[in-house]
Amino acid sequence: MAKKAVIIGGVAAGMKTAARLRRRDPEANIIVLERGPSLSYGACGFPYYISGEVKSFKVFDHIPQGLPRDAAFFKNTKGIDARTGCNVTAIDRKNKTVAYEENGLQKTLPYDYLVLGTGATPVKLNLPGADLKGIHSFWFPWDVLAVEEEIKSGQVKEAAVIGAGFIGMEVAECLRHRGVKTAIIEAKEWLLPNLLDEEMAELAAAPVKASGIELYLGAKCEKFLGENGRVSAVVTDKGTIKAQLVIVAIGVRPNVELAAAAGLTIGPSGCIAVNEHLQTSDPYIYAGGDCAENTNRISGAKVFAPMGSTANKHGRVIADHIAGDEAVFPGVLQTGLCRLFQTEAGATGLNEAACRKAGIDFVSAVVPGFDRLNYMPGAGRLVLKLLAEPSSGRVLGLQAVGQGAAKRIDTMVAALSMGATLDDLSNFDIAYAPPFNGPIDNLATAANVVANKIAGRMRGVNPKDYHRHKEDYTLVDVRLPFETKAKSIAAVPKKISLPLGELRQEGETLADKKTKLLICCQINLRGYEAETILRSQGYEDVSSLEGGLIGWPYETE
Amino acid sequence: MAKKAVIIGGVAAGMKTAARLRRRDPEANIIVLERGPSLSYGACGFPYYISGEVKSFKVFDHIPQGLPRDAAFFKNTKGIDARTGCNVTAIDRKNKTVAYEENGLQKTLPYDYLVLGTGATPVKLNLPGADLKGIHSFWFPWDVLAVEEEIKSGQVKEAAVIGAGFIGMEVAECLRHRGVKTAIIEAKEWLLPNLLDEEMAELAAAPVKASGIELYLGAKCEKFLGENGRVSAVVTDKGTIKAQLVIVAIGVRPNVELAAAAGLTIGPSGCIAVNEHLQTSDPYIYAGGDCAENTNRISGAKVFAPMGSTANKHGRVIADHIAGDEAVFPGVLQTGLCRLFQTEAGATGLNEAACRKAGIDFVSAVVPGFDRLNYMPGAGRLVLKLLAEPSSGRVLGLQAVGQGAAKRIDTMVAALSMGATLDDLSNFDIAYAPPFNGPIDNLATAANVVANKIAGRMRGVNPKDYHRHKEDYTLVDVRLPFETKAKSIAAVPKKISLPLGELRQEGETLADKKTKLLICCQINLRGYEAETILRSQGYEDVSSLEGGLIGWPYETE
Repeated sequence: MAKKAVIIGGVAAGMKTAARLRRRDPEANIIVLERGPSLSYGACGFPYYISGEVKSFKVFDHIPQGLPRDAAFFKNTKGIDARTGCNVTAIDRKNKTVAYEENGLQKTLPYDYLVLGTGATPVKLNLPGADLKGIHSFWFPWDVLAVEEEIKSGQVKEAAVIGAGFIGMEVAECLRHRGVKTAIIEAKEWLLPNLLDEEMAELAAAPVKASGIELYLGAKCEKFLGENGRVSAVVTDKGTIKAQLVIVAIGVRPNVELAAAAGLTIGPSGCIAVNEHLQTSDPYIYAGGDCAENTNRISGAKVFAPMGSTANKHGRVIADHIAGDEAVFPGVLQTGLCRLFQTEAGATGLNEAACRKAGIDFVSAVVPGFDRLNYMPGAGRLVLKLLAEPSSGRVLGLQAVGQGAAKRIDTMVAALSMGATLDDLSNFDIAYAPPFNGPIDNLATAANVVANKIAGRMRGVNPKDYHRHKEDYTLVDVRLPFETKAKSIAAVPKKISLPLGELRQEGETLADKKTKLLICCQINLRGYEAETILRSQGYEDVSSLEGGLIGWPYETE
Repeated sequence: MAKKAVIIGGVAAGMKTAARLRRRDPEANIIVLERGPSLSYGACGFPYYISGEVKSFKVFDHIPQGLPRDAAFFKNTKGIDARTGCNVTAIDRKNKTVAYEENGLQKTLPYDYLVLGTGATPVKLNLPGADLKGIHSFWFPWDVLAVEEEIKSGQVKEAAVIGAGFIGMEVAECLRHRGVKTAIIEAKEWLLPNLLDEEMAELAAAPVKASGIELYLGAKCEKFLGENGRVSAVVTDKGTIKAQLVIVAIGVRPNVELAAAAGLTIGPSGCIAVNEHLQTSDPYIYAGGDCAENTNRISGAKVFAPMGSTANKHGRVIADHIAGDEAVFPGVLQTGLCRLFQTEAGATGLNEAACRKAGIDFVSAVVPGFDRLNYMPGAGRLVLKLLAEPSSGRVLGLQAVGQGAAKRIDTMVAALSMGATLDDLSNFDIAYAPPFNGPIDNLATAANVVANKIAGRMRGVNPKDYHRHKEDYTLVDVRLPFETKAKSIAAVPKKISLPLGELRQEGETLADKKTKLLICCQINLRGYEAETILRSQGYEDVSSLEGGLIGWPYETE
């Protein structure tokens, strides 16, 4: 007899499950129950409608050939019975039925397999004035259309985005593209706080500030002010920010109420717990997409990792498992990437905070460079931060800020997924052609630097550590005089300048051999060379500034 | 006592070995003997000097801060004794000395470790007229300077590039950038013949032809014609091509004479045989760079794979091994990448020819798409061809033509290096953000298509096979009428048009159930859907056209 598969939620995971299951099983009876009015819409592109880069909202819920992805489309081309406006109210696991409301009527539907793709809901900011007009989430299609309407009507001169995670940063960037004066308010101390470590976030902040966006970091929102029922300002402990449009992007939470009420296990991340086949604690019920718990492939941690890309993969695995394969979803790397005007910021795997939380020992290095041969036109700065486990050499995570970040992030995704070590990374036969790369790819350089640190051949000091403890070090600038004149670290208490080319001859008498020396150059290649020289000259405490001037995220002079 | 390391060849592998060894061993006595006048120059960038993108030749042999990478530089900053104009004539392995000529004097030098970085030499085209002025290789600095001189002097209106490998394609593209009318002459039937399979090379040829470059493929050069001692034309069996400048780029061969004369083993590829530590058959003698044999990581084949990026990796491994580490070079993937005006063509791992040569069974798929969400501004076509081993699911190789090819190639390099399977590729947590990617990365789509083919769920037909055997199939175009009107495959003998949305209803009576049906759509997503439907309707011989219209490299109407 044909399988009856009922899918709750008709956006990413749900519709992908349905489509794949149809291809795997032409006989299956596939019913999708979607609460909202739209099916299979692409929410990830919403910010680019606000920026004006995407001209028509239709691209989000129509196929490229122009047909709407509505119930008729899914019926005709996919043989899927997808019903909108169907609000599932309960799951009866014993009788394998779901109860739902459609047009005010109570209905039930039997299932052999049930798939939960119930998604997530934006977290609200419950502050005085939160019900003023002009304060929006940025999650559902109607949020986006309302924001667009308000901008178009000319009511918005200034906007405030609360939350500097992915959605907040994307929306802020897109508002700025649109010409709206924009401020970002973030409770934590730096941008993209779940993605990037502090010094990398400082680098990512530079193009944002340069665009004219104002950053209020470590700022606590206290209330909204209004005029004639419309928001006029956000009051924070760091000042009052005028805004006729406020986007609240402080996070989303998984929709697990239905699953919890049915007695399914909710995991430590607050999502619906699933096994490697994405089965919940009831083997006839699967969960996929934002509501399902993910496992970080590096740390093994159970995480809430809502991503459209993950939802699609979930859907495929669920459909294949229902179709009888031993399909396995191996977990996520919590990869994230964000366009920041002309540059890019992203990360994959574990950052410092994630390593500490998981109790994984790590060595990291901040490694600057260019995304291609530095003399090629269009070459741009790219700073990587690579983390690896010293005992095993296993790579743990990568952060990248700059031009060409996306490419290195994706390469690292493959490396991390396959359990690569620093040695592996160093020897990848990365495509080399001057318009695209240098002969030693940035990832290989980063791997070599971390390996040198682990082996004790190089003692890098992270820029944020030098920035906090400048008094502890005598900075030895080994660049040429014209370079030090052009750009140097600001407010250095103790400093010596001696170009690398003179260090072998003149280095002996630089300072007392017990002086704590920190070498600084442009990209910390000469710095590494200088470390070796000074150490061989008997200096006892020599290290070099990771990232050099190119990767220095703080003030220069 | 300090180690004596003598390095023959002071360009990529040699200088990298020297620099790394110095950092590993401050005491070592490191001497480099270079035959030519220049040290450590970056030949890979030479084409971009001809295009005019690189303004100064200095970038190739000066450090970014402006100092020349000459003997004084290496002495002062690296503590390396690098000597130019030193032609090594013999290796005495018994006494561990090398004999060399410097300024007409015979000298000898003892070594503890000897490193051969003797490079490669361009193959000459010995045809009548080959000694005419204006015929050049494109390998050494003086080749490039001579070409530039001739273009600048106004003598060059038309150029011919013989050989459509990497160097030939790069130089041709750069000559065109410079405004020179350019023809490419290639003995094999398609461009980049060692890199790409036929149908992928056809796609790569499109932007080349669109630039105005004339392609003479499968053409045999017969002689050069001259006027006043200068070349005026290349005579081929496909016509005579006017050219006042000819670049001969038909390949290079490794310089192994010195090694062979010393009795070192020469491998099956014609390069100096080495083990995984890059030691030759004499453990005190290493070889690195273009003269050293490489092992393909996927097939295990011994190959000649001259690349600046590989030379750098070799140098690092050799230095680390001399310094006492168990350093291992794991081999190459023969990765290659080429800019073709606004697009990119590249490959890594094995193509069809390499699989056949190695006796490895493969299934392949040509999978078209866009490099990012198709509705984002700037989205461009990207066609992938992925090969995998059906028995194991192990991925074997990737070819990519289009925008964003470089990123997928590099991701695939990591995957191939780590022995990834199609399942692995399908589940990589690739960075998803609309300006950079779609929710299902092109690589995952390609992996899914190949997996569907291996499982028998999809029967793709390669475009070159349909192109050759159109008579065998009835083409079923399942696109919408406006799409078929806009662009369809030319000269189709048997054709039915029926949009996918009508196929479930109308498909039953399409044709006799034994008819050989080939489904065609835009990117072969609907084609796959249609395959499933028609098969469930009882059609016995259904397949779909891989790549669809987007990936169709032949004539359209």
